[in-house]
Amino acid sequence: MMIPTKKYAKAAKIAPKGFDTANEFFEFVFNDKEIIWMGQNTNHLHKENQIRDAMLSCVESREYAKYPPPEGFPELKKLILKDLNLEDSDILITAGGTESLYLCMNDILEPHNNVITCDPGYLIIDNFASRFANEVRSVPIYSSENGYKLTPELVRANMDENTKIVVLIDPLNPLGSSYTEEEMKEFAEIAEENDIYLLHDITYKDFARKHFLAADYAPDHAITIYSFSKICGMAGLRIGSIIGASNIISSVRTILINDLGTNLIAQAGAIAALKSKDDWIKEVITTTRNNQKIIKEVVDEIPGAFIPVYPSEGNMLAIDLKGTGINPTEMVEYLLERKIFVRQGTYTSNRFGDNYFRVSFSIPEEQVRTFVKEFRKAIDFLRKN
Amino acid sequence: MMIPTKKYAKAAKIAPKGFDTANEFFEFVFNDKEIIWMGQNTNHLHKENQIRDAMLSCVESREYAKYPPPEGFPELKKLILKDLNLEDSDILITAGGTESLYLCMNDILEPHNNVITCDPGYLIIDNFASRFANEVRSVPIYSSENGYKLTPELVRANMDENTKIVVLIDPLNPLGSSYTEEEMKEFAEIAEENDIYLLHDITYKDFARKHFLAADYAPDHAITIYSFSKICGMAGLRIGSIIGASNIISSVRTILINDLGTNLIAQAGAIAALKSKDDWIKEVITTTRNNQKIIKEVVDEIPGAFIPVYPSEGNMLAIDLKGTGINPTEMVEYLLERKIFVRQGTYTSNRFGDNYFRVSFSIPEEQVRTFVKEFRKAIDFLRKN
Repeated sequence: MMIPTKKYAKAAKIAPKGFDTANEFFEFVFNDKEIIWMGQNTNHLHKENQIRDAMLSCVESREYAKYPPPEGFPELKKLILKDLNLEDSDILITAGGTESLYLCMNDILEPHNNVITCDPGYLIIDNFASRFANEVRSVPIYSSENGYKLTPELVRANMDENTKIVVLIDPLNPLGSSYTEEEMKEFAEIAEENDIYLLHDITYKDFARKHFLAADYAPDHAITIYSFSKICGMAGLRIGSIIGASNIISSVRTILINDLGTNLIAQAGAIAALKSKDDWIKEVITTTRNNQKIIKEVVDEIPGAFIPVYPSEGNMLAIDLKGTGINPTEMVEYLLERKIFVRQGTYTSNRFGDNYFRVSFSIPEEQVRTFVKEFRKAIDFLRKN
Repeated sequence: MMIPTKKYAKAAKIAPKGFDTANEFFEFVFNDKEIIWMGQNTNHLHKENQIRDAMLSCVESREYAKYPPPEGFPELKKLILKDLNLEDSDILITAGGTESLYLCMNDILEPHNNVITCDPGYLIIDNFASRFANEVRSVPIYSSENGYKLTPELVRANMDENTKIVVLIDPLNPLGSSYTEEEMKEFAEIAEENDIYLLHDITYKDFARKHFLAADYAPDHAITIYSFSKICGMAGLRIGSIIGASNIISSVRTILINDLGTNLIAQAGAIAALKSKDDWIKEVITTTRNNQKIIKEVVDEIPGAFIPVYPSEGNMLAIDLKGTGINPTEMVEYLLERKIFVRQGTYTSNRFGDNYFRVSFSIPEEQVRTFVKEFRKAIDFLRKN
């Protein structure tokens, strides 16, 4: 039915050389246990057992014959609100940040509205916005002039009376840029003055050195998109949530899709993840930051290559190859042949996809060392060709 | 944004007396391990360990740090197609039959279309249809004249040039009516002649004595909605699929929401469920049918009460109380106080909800015996009041 969708559906469907479809590619990489997983911002550093054990107990209980409460278990809802220090907000549990983003777009947007996003960015958001809005204003931000992020100035320059949502991915996938408190205050002012919403996707929040919640500065105009996929290492469980003022969440309730609830094993894991967070987060972050340094040192040695945002506040960064003359897609293919999965820039940018490729680094250090070794070789090899 | 939705959102939000919201009610019943679960058509009869063990292994593997392939694991896709003997069809794995229904409505419907459903029926389907179509034609079918089901005659009488989807829930939740081969052939003719779609929800298929797939008679005009919730006892895992001709499924692919895939533990369980189906299905069905007989015998003794469709081809049936003068909602509340969860008619019917309540019976026989004992007492008690 929806034509605009198809325009934005391309990016997610990118299949590397040798594969007909993205699904076929993912079937292949998923099953190859030797592949180094630097292509999806997932987190492979969890060694502790609390999350795993909670899910094992949940399976053992066989409670899965029943439907869980449609909006999620109250214990989980409370733990998320506590994690964000947003105890006065309302919340819905969803099958992941992706579903959360879709539901917000569906609930808020009227057909004459436009939505402000950024490029590079997480393109499924543009896709969802395009299904409900008149226009998606994807602002080019790949420049040091604006700190490789959507700034308050850029938002003001691109908005008009039909703008209804400003999407802030923070830290930003794929670049790792994030916002200062001053910037967040200015976004809050813009939202309140114009009665629009800040859709604040905080999927990578816990990797950041400092982080400021839009909801703290514009409580009635911010919606927070929360995910367990990254910091908690639970991507394959598909669980997330939507947090906002009660009038917003009440409205989203009227357009829920999965009215029979979210996978209860995932909810059991999520509860355990938040309860045990203090036990594991330090090691996850320390390793992730150290891995980032290892990558930076190697990129710095390569003439023409650079990292636009360093340090990245997420668990991923972009490596710009424009000055090397190497096509990032060839780099991705070269590395995949050596069992290293990284992501072509076109997956996260319509305009700048030929400049960079993205690497995620919440993985064991020895795998990052394998990556940098192969990356060096790739530069030499691809320059000659 | 969508007004029509809110009109249809009521039914799912029904909260029994003493509860502010449906979610609060479900939080309560879920946590009370003594409650006899006859209110959700779920299946509590699985004793075997294959499904459980496959999920335990999946959790142990920690593969959940990764995203699964967006459209589902190929092994699962193949097993579902084999289960239906529809090996030439295309398929997508989803987070449950509910999400499958939503995606089909979203993909197929244009704003001028109308959709034919039935009342009683599964009202979330009407809700989804109302989000994308001009009109939902919910045909009253609560009559012995049409066998308590949406017949080909009723479809012809209610369709026009804007009809695009006919929803066939088969067996029908809540009544348990199902279709003969002749009826299915006639539906197929209607669909092909008018180039419309049969949305065939086969959630309860395996409980039926005989079942005929719309896809076998109208392969290019049928979409099959498949669920693991009921026969496989996996409701809390939220997994299902959409099966159809490749052009239909290719189109649905363009409007997917969860483009990062479906919970991989649920997929592991689903794979094990289909591989082990021959080992457990006979016992599940034998117990379910025997339980139905026990209920029938008691209802037959009560003047004014009757079961509209007997035997039900599902794992649920409706008990009509109109002739007893008892309000079914009072029956539901009476039984809930005695820790028996059944469903008020208004959950599955806008027109006939005051006639009946629904009981599900894929539960251990001793629990059904507790139900019939309390049901008898309830009739005596509520008649006097």
